[in-house]
Amino acid sequence: MPDFTKIFEYISENEYPFITRLAEAVAIPSVSGESERREDVVKMGTWLSEQLTKAGATDVELKPLGKEDNGLDLPPVVVGRWGTDEKKKTVLIYGHYDVQPAQRSDGWWSKPFKLAIDGDRLIGRGSTDDKGPVCGWLNVLDAHREAGVEIPVNLVFCFEGMEESGSIGLDDLIKREADGYFKGVDAVCISDNYWLGTKYPVVTYGVRGVSYYEVAVEGPKADLHSGLFGGIVYEPLTDLVHVFSQLVTPQGEILIPGLQDMVAPLTDKEDKLYDTLHFDLSELEENVGAKTVLQDSIKKAMQARWREPSLSLHGIEGAFAETGAKTVIPHKVIGKFSIRTVPNIEPRKLDEIVFDHVKKSFAKLNSKNKMEVSLVHDGDYWVTDPHGWSYTAAVKATKEVYGVEPDLTREGGSIPITLSFQNNLNAPVVLLPMGRGDDGAHSTNEKLNLTNFIKGSQTLAAYLHYLAE
Amino acid sequence: MPDFTKIFEYISENEYPFITRLAEAVAIPSVSGESERREDVVKMGTWLSEQLTKAGATDVELKPLGKEDNGLDLPPVVVGRWGTDEKKKTVLIYGHYDVQPAQRSDGWWSKPFKLAIDGDRLIGRGSTDDKGPVCGWLNVLDAHREAGVEIPVNLVFCFEGMEESGSIGLDDLIKREADGYFKGVDAVCISDNYWLGTKYPVVTYGVRGVSYYEVAVEGPKADLHSGLFGGIVYEPLTDLVHVFSQLVTPQGEILIPGLQDMVAPLTDKEDKLYDTLHFDLSELEENVGAKTVLQDSIKKAMQARWREPSLSLHGIEGAFAETGAKTVIPHKVIGKFSIRTVPNIEPRKLDEIVFDHVKKSFAKLNSKNKMEVSLVHDGDYWVTDPHGWSYTAAVKATKEVYGVEPDLTREGGSIPITLSFQNNLNAPVVLLPMGRGDDGAHSTNEKLNLTNFIKGSQTLAAYLHYLAE
Ligand SMILES: [Zn+2]
Ligand SMILES: [Zn+2]
Ligand SMILES: [Zn+2]
Ligand SMILES: [Zn+2]
Repeated sequence: MPDFTKIFEYISENEYPFITRLAEAVAIPSVSGESERREDVVKMGTWLSEQLTKAGATDVELKPLGKEDNGLDLPPVVVGRWGTDEKKKTVLIYGHYDVQPAQRSDGWWSKPFKLAIDGDRLIGRGSTDDKGPVCGWLNVLDAHREAGVEIPVNLVFCFEGMEESGSIGLDDLIKREADGYFKGVDAVCISDNYWLGTKYPVVTYGVRGVSYYEVAVEGPKADLHSGLFGGIVYEPLTDLVHVFSQLVTPQGEILIPGLQDMVAPLTDKEDKLYDTLHFDLSELEENVGAKTVLQDSIKKAMQARWREPSLSLHGIEGAFAETGAKTVIPHKVIGKFSIRTVPNIEPRKLDEIVFDHVKKSFAKLNSKNKMEVSLVHDGDYWVTDPHGWSYTAAVKATKEVYGVEPDLTREGGSIPITLSFQNNLNAPVVLLPMGRGDDGAHSTNEKLNLTNFIKGSQTLAAYLHYLAE
Repeated sequence: MPDFTKIFEYISENEYPFITRLAEAVAIPSVSGESERREDVVKMGTWLSEQLTKAGATDVELKPLGKEDNGLDLPPVVVGRWGTDEKKKTVLIYGHYDVQPAQRSDGWWSKPFKLAIDGDRLIGRGSTDDKGPVCGWLNVLDAHREAGVEIPVNLVFCFEGMEESGSIGLDDLIKREADGYFKGVDAVCISDNYWLGTKYPVVTYGVRGVSYYEVAVEGPKADLHSGLFGGIVYEPLTDLVHVFSQLVTPQGEILIPGLQDMVAPLTDKEDKLYDTLHFDLSELEENVGAKTVLQDSIKKAMQARWREPSLSLHGIEGAFAETGAKTVIPHKVIGKFSIRTVPNIEPRKLDEIVFDHVKKSFAKLNSKNKMEVSLVHDGDYWVTDPHGWSYTAAVKATKEVYGVEPDLTREGGSIPITLSFQNNLNAPVVLLPMGRGDDGAHSTNEKLNLTNFIKGSQTLAAYLHYLAE
């Protein structure tokens, strides 16, 4: 077992400089989704590249990604290295330096871009998603450099600035650099998700995919007055509601024939992983804010979240959506729904059975309106072996720091870039989160616990050492 | 038969002064729905009272209606008289001097508040709704005064300035003045609707009512991410879609038990009224802009519009309604629908069966979400006897001017004030429209044909004479 004493001590004794650096990062409002903030996103990329260089990284570069559709320059991907020893394994470290939008008026108790400290909580936009974890890696570099401990693997950094806006350009860059900057990568570590609850650390081995669909129903050439036309025309919204009612039951059962057949059967081994989760129904109900969970055990609920498909109706474009009472017959409505995908749902096969089912449902209505169903976007699921070597290193590191076996979790939401790294670099990916389940990543008063910042940094450090074992 | 020669001649020979007066009226942008235009609405009321006085009306007053909820003064109701001969019948003339909003940028070819003349078309906001008909009555007064012909009935004018904004305050005023200013009214004439098509005059004997409902379904305390919560919570939008699908079929069949039982049976006499309508399916399809009419004959379509209930779904508040793809599970959705009512649907009984049906439909879903159904507003239907004395006068007048038997029509939409006059003044109401079905009352490029302005004014004049027969 590696000796972590010096590393861990350095990290736990340097809370204040680490907090100061995180505060600097939070102070740059690098909101990738707001074009007027694009300069700040670029500024944040530059700041990060300078930090890497200062910490001792080499070959630090800002890789341009070209332009966005709106004409704006995409923020660059910040890359860098630590070590080039051919005898060592090479780990790619991914993170993102852009953040979600935030305004005081959304309900923040403090200024979102000024890190506030409230007891153990470091509050600010990006504190947990994903500036905290990115700074965690800087902490790791500082600790090894200052404590004079060698990092037993080579590191390649890859920090993007468009994650919150669809990671535009990153997939292409990974493909392009697979035999270039990223050549020789043996494993990938992503710290951009969260613990299941608030007390127990986790290591994550899978995410669901998502396929997002639209159903457009169109009839009259313009919106009609229901007094004049109610009862004498086929109404697009009525048709859409009937089609939607044929997609999923209130109990969450998906009514698309053939879908459930594609879902991988639950093995005993996998089933057992759900027996030891440190999370319970009441915590889940607290997240929901109501006792409206479909399942009667946390095991079944987490299986539904992580390894079963689900279908959610999101809304309708073109219908009356305001407060008040408008007597309109909308002439064209676009219903939106998505399906969360899991092994072994094949996206193109899914599209086929979705389209087929929607078309048949609509045909049964005998309506004279026109219907079109289409895929808006999709991202595949990802699952790795929770007993593989890189994953095992992450589990050991977490246990080393927190003193308990971490929960082995998946995520219900998709992280598309995970799959891109795995496929293009042909390397196992592990998701090793730093923050807690209640951090409120995309919400108001986003926070990262100082405990998690410090122990999380120690965990990242330990992971590198266990990787080399 | 009265001799209309002098009256009709005066009207047809004074196109230009009449157009000039209508242009003056259109030039005042009396938009009741825009608070910053409230002064213009009041200005228009003053202008109208001055025109009435100038024409020879007496007791002209601006009756205040108090304040709107937003603190703005309501525009006054302009009242006036012509004649107080106790041996004559007394007719109340209703019209409104406010208009719908209009902006050049909405797609008007000319300035909306500057009357444009394009061949036979007088184009401008309010030209047909309802400044044209209101000016028509001024034309009638001028014609009688200048031609030296006595009006054989007493007139009471009642012109409001809030019709396009819910006629706030008018119902109370009618009640208040039933034994005051409006005492002794024998009949009411409203010219504020339209021909069925573009070629054939109509007289209107009924309107449908409307009852507007909301169904609110609520579960989680805030919107959820479908990646995290898809498949593990009862989703309010799914529930609502299932409830909505139990309200009406794509063929327009209302699924609420007991509703159809309340609908008055179609008598042979009433059925025959639909045989002679000068309107056809292709014109109706042109209005719709698509071949998506439910019925295969115009007779059945018009019966559906005028004498059958209909149920339209309008939209959903709280769900995702924008362009694009958002993976949200809305935590609270409010579905909106309304039912058009006809004889003999009793509104309170309707509420009862609607609430009952919605509650039962929701209960069948076995959802843990909460559902509430409520009435937002309602207005009763109105039907008068198309063979009554006031109505017969309107039919004769129309035939006199246009040389054909008018179509006897109803309106699919509601005109709540009709019922208020009938009930509070205990007098028959007739709807005697001036404009055509394609005038675009609430639309861009609203117009009134000059032919209709002139012949319509002649019709209003003739109506007064036939009333006295
Ligand atoms: Zn993130
Ligand atoms: Zn994020
Ligand atoms: Zn009107
Ligand atoms: Zn109107």
